[in-house]
Amino acid sequence: MQRLLTSVKRVLQVKKAMQEASLSPASLLPGAHQRFSTVPAVPLAKTDTWPENVGILALEVYFPAQYVDQTDLEKYNNVEAGKYTVGLGQTHMGFCSVQEDINSLCLTVVQQLMERTQLPWDSVGRLEVGTETIIDKSKAVKTVLMELFQDSGNTDIEGIDTTNACYGGTASLFNAANWVESSSWDGRYAMVVCGDIAVYPSGNARPTGGAGAVAMLVGPKAPLALERAGIDRPFTLDDLQFMIFHTPFCKMVQKSLARLMFNDFLSASSNMKTSLYKGLEDFRGLKLEDTYTNKDLDKALQKASLDMFNKKTKASLYLSTHNGNTYTSSLYGCLASLLSQHSAQDLAGSRIGAFSYGSGLAASFFSFRVSQDASPGSPLEKLVSSVSDLPKRLASRKRMSPEEFTEIMDQREQFYHKVNFSPPGDISSLFPGTWYLEQVDELHRRKYARRPV
Amino acid sequence: MQRLLTSVKRVLQVKKAMQEASLSPASLLPGAHQRFSTVPAVPLAKTDTWPENVGILALEVYFPAQYVDQTDLEKYNNVEAGKYTVGLGQTHMGFCSVQEDINSLCLTVVQQLMERTQLPWDSVGRLEVGTETIIDKSKAVKTVLMELFQDSGNTDIEGIDTTNACYGGTASLFNAANWVESSSWDGRYAMVVCGDIAVYPSGNARPTGGAGAVAMLVGPKAPLALERAGIDRPFTLDDLQFMIFHTPFCKMVQKSLARLMFNDFLSASSNMKTSLYKGLEDFRGLKLEDTYTNKDLDKALQKASLDMFNKKTKASLYLSTHNGNTYTSSLYGCLASLLSQHSAQDLAGSRIGAFSYGSGLAASFFSFRVSQDASPGSPLEKLVSSVSDLPKRLASRKRMSPEEFTEIMDQREQFYHKVNFSPPGDISSLFPGTWYLEQVDELHRRKYARRPV
Repeated sequence: MQRLLTSVKRVLQVKKAMQEASLSPASLLPGAHQRFSTVPAVPLAKTDTWPENVGILALEVYFPAQYVDQTDLEKYNNVEAGKYTVGLGQTHMGFCSVQEDINSLCLTVVQQLMERTQLPWDSVGRLEVGTETIIDKSKAVKTVLMELFQDSGNTDIEGIDTTNACYGGTASLFNAANWVESSSWDGRYAMVVCGDIAVYPSGNARPTGGAGAVAMLVGPKAPLALERAGIDRPFTLDDLQFMIFHTPFCKMVQKSLARLMFNDFLSASSNMKTSLYKGLEDFRGLKLEDTYTNKDLDKALQKASLDMFNKKTKASLYLSTHNGNTYTSSLYGCLASLLSQHSAQDLAGSRIGAFSYGSGLAASFFSFRVSQDASPGSPLEKLVSSVSDLPKRLASRKRMSPEEFTEIMDQREQFYHKVNFSPPGDISSLFPGTWYLEQVDELHRRKYARRPV
Repeated sequence: MQRLLTSVKRVLQVKKAMQEASLSPASLLPGAHQRFSTVPAVPLAKTDTWPENVGILALEVYFPAQYVDQTDLEKYNNVEAGKYTVGLGQTHMGFCSVQEDINSLCLTVVQQLMERTQLPWDSVGRLEVGTETIIDKSKAVKTVLMELFQDSGNTDIEGIDTTNACYGGTASLFNAANWVESSSWDGRYAMVVCGDIAVYPSGNARPTGGAGAVAMLVGPKAPLALERAGIDRPFTLDDLQFMIFHTPFCKMVQKSLARLMFNDFLSASSNMKTSLYKGLEDFRGLKLEDTYTNKDLDKALQKASLDMFNKKTKASLYLSTHNGNTYTSSLYGCLASLLSQHSAQDLAGSRIGAFSYGSGLAASFFSFRVSQDASPGSPLEKLVSSVSDLPKRLASRKRMSPEEFTEIMDQREQFYHKVNFSPPGDISSLFPGTWYLEQVDELHRRKYARRPV
C-alpha cells in the first residue's frame, strides 16, 4: 500500500541501501565515487517542508556512434552548398541502424548515468520517460527500463511515460520535480529520461533528423535548481545569462533568440531602444502580423542579436549542430552542451532561461538557477566535469557516406513492422556499453543485449 | 516565463476570475451554483507550506448512450447461459459508434464537469489525460481539450498525456496531486481526465469491452483526500472500510478481494485465523505458487470473503457491471459507483482502499480518506449527490441487439484508418451535450461538434 506505508518503505529503503553498501565493494570505493558523482550515494532525508533547490543533480547524454556529414549530404542530394550547413546551421547528423530503437537508447543512457554516478539502483524512487517515438501504443518505455533495476530488487518506482511531441521531456522533468516537492516523495531520487529517433523521408526534411537520449537525476540541493520564486516585474533577456531552446535545427534557435530580443525592444523605453537595440528603430511601427515575414527585419534582428547569441546561446548548440534533432531530449542536450562549453566558474550564480515546446501545442518558458559554489568537488563542478567529454565523444563517432546512411534509413523502413528477425548490423559499430535490439519474436516481443563496456 | 512569473500570473488570474464573475451572469447565480458545486468558484490561496487534504473535489462520469445486453450476447454467440453474466459478472456493455472517439469522450466529460461545477474555465491550471486509446502517436488528447478553454482566454494550463495501459489515470491523478503540493502550483485547480474505448475482436474477449471517461477536479480541502501520512505497522483489509479495484471484469474483482483476504489470513496470528477466516485453515501450508491455481482454495476464499465483498466492494462495481471495462477510467468509475450507492453519512470518515494496475507492469495500492463532515451542503455531501444520478443515467441508455452491436463494431474497424469522411450514424442517438466526431479530412484532421444540451 504505497501511500499508507510511505514511512515504512523509506526505513526499509535506507536499510537496504546500507546493506548494499556493505555488500558491494564498488559503492564503497570513495575514490571512484568521488571522481564522478555529483550526488550522495544514500537516500536523502525527507522533511516536513518543501525541500530546497529541487532540480538537476546529474545528467547523461547518449547519441549514436555513427553520423553523416551534412556537406556530403548536400552534394548527394544535389542542393546548393551551404543549404544544410549554413541555412539550417547543421554540420553532422547522428543516426541509428535497425539495431537501435527508443527502448535501447533509453536503456543505454540510464545505465550510463547510474554507472557514472555510481548510485545504488534502489536509490531511484521515480522514473519517467518523455518520448514521441512509439513502439507500443500501450506499454511504456519505462517498463522496459525497469529491467535494469531488477537485480537490485527495486520494483517500487513511480512514474510512467508522457507524450506530447517534443514537450514530453519537459513534462517529465516538471513531474519529477513536483514529486520531490510533494507529500508522496519517499526521499529517493527521481530520474527523468527523454529521447527520440527523428527520421524523415528523403527530401527537404531529411537533413533535420537525428537521434539521441538524455537521462537526468532530479532531487533537492541541485546545482541546477528549477526556479520556484516568482518575480513581480517584466523580465528581459538581461535577466538571463544563458538562454537555451528546443532545437529542431540550429538556425531556428538563432532566429528565436532574435525574436525574443525584438520583444524586449518593443517593450523597452525610448532611451533603451536607441542604445541597446541598434538598427531596429525603423521597425518600431510594424504591425505584429507583418513582422513574421519581413526579411529586412530578420536581417536587422540577426545583426542586432549576434553578440547576444554568441554569448548566451551558441555554446548550447554544440550537440545539436553535430548530432541533429532529438525531439524530447533536444533541450536537455542543449543544457549538456552549455555545461560542456563553460567552466563551473563561468556558470556559477547564473540564470539559464529555457524554452521548451512541442507540436500539438504545449510550451513552457522556465529557468534554472545555477548554484554559487563552483569550487573543486562542489556539486556544480562535478556536474560540469561529468559532461566535459561531450566534444571528444562526438569526435570519436564514425563518419558514414550518404549512400550508407540512405541504405540504413531504407532498412529501418523495411524492418519497421517486421517480426521474427534479428537486426542486421555489426555490434562492434556501437559504442562500448550500448544496449541494442537483439531480436523481435513473432509476438513482437523485443529482446535487448548490451555491448560490453 | 512560467516559473519566473508565477506570482504575477496568479494575481492576473484572480483579477480575471473576478472580472468574469462580474461579466458572466451564470457564475453569479448562487442558487444554481449551490445546487451542484462542491468547490469554490474562485482560485485558491497559495501558501508557503503543503496544502492540506489534496484530493478529489468533484468527479464526472461519461458513458455511451447505447449498450448491448450480455444475456443477448450469450445467445448470439451460442455460449452457455451465464458465461458472461455470471462467469464474468457483466450484465450490460456500453459501446461507441464511429461518431465517438477518445477525443470526443474526453471533450464530453470535461465539459460536463465544468458545467456541473459551474467553475470559470480559467480556474483550471493543470489538465492531464491518461489513456491508452491512441489516435495520434505524438499529439496529446489534452491539446484537443484545450479547445474548450479557448473562449475563456485560458491558454496557460500545464500537463499533457500519460501512457501505460490501464494505469494512466492513476499516474495522472498522482501527478496532479503532486503539482498542487509543489512549488509550481499557481493556486488553481488541476483536472484529471481518463478514458478509453475497449474493443476486442469477436470471440471470447469481446464481452469484456466497454467505453467511457471520467474527469476529476483535484485540489486542497478535498472530501476525498489522497492519504499522505505513512503508518508504521502492517495493514489488513480491516483498515479499509471500502476497497475498489481496476475492473477488467467484475468477477476478477471479487477474486482479487478474496486474494487480499487470503494474504491477511496468512500473516494473521493463530487466534485470528480461526475466528475471522473460517474454512481457510486447510490451506495454511500451501506453497504460494500452488495457491494461484487451486480451485478448492478459490471456492473457500470466495465463500469466506463474500460478506466482506458485499460490504466493502460490491457497490463500487455498479458502473462496471452495466457498462464494462474502460481501462484507465475503470477504477475511477468504481469510485463514482461507490459514492452513488452510499449516503454521505455512510462514507464520512472512512478510508477507501484503491488498487490500480496496467499491463506493461505498473501498479499502485493507495487510499483515500473521506472527510468527516457529511452535513447538508458539505463538500462531501455535494460530491455524493452530484453522482447520485448514475443509476438513472445508465437506465436511460438504449438497448441495441447483438446484430446492431456487431455491425457497429465492424464499422469501427472499416473506418479506423479512413480519411475524408463524415461518420455514419444518428446524432440524436447520443445523450444531449455529447461531443461527437463530425469529420475527418484528408490530412487526418478531426473536427468535433456537440449535440445541444
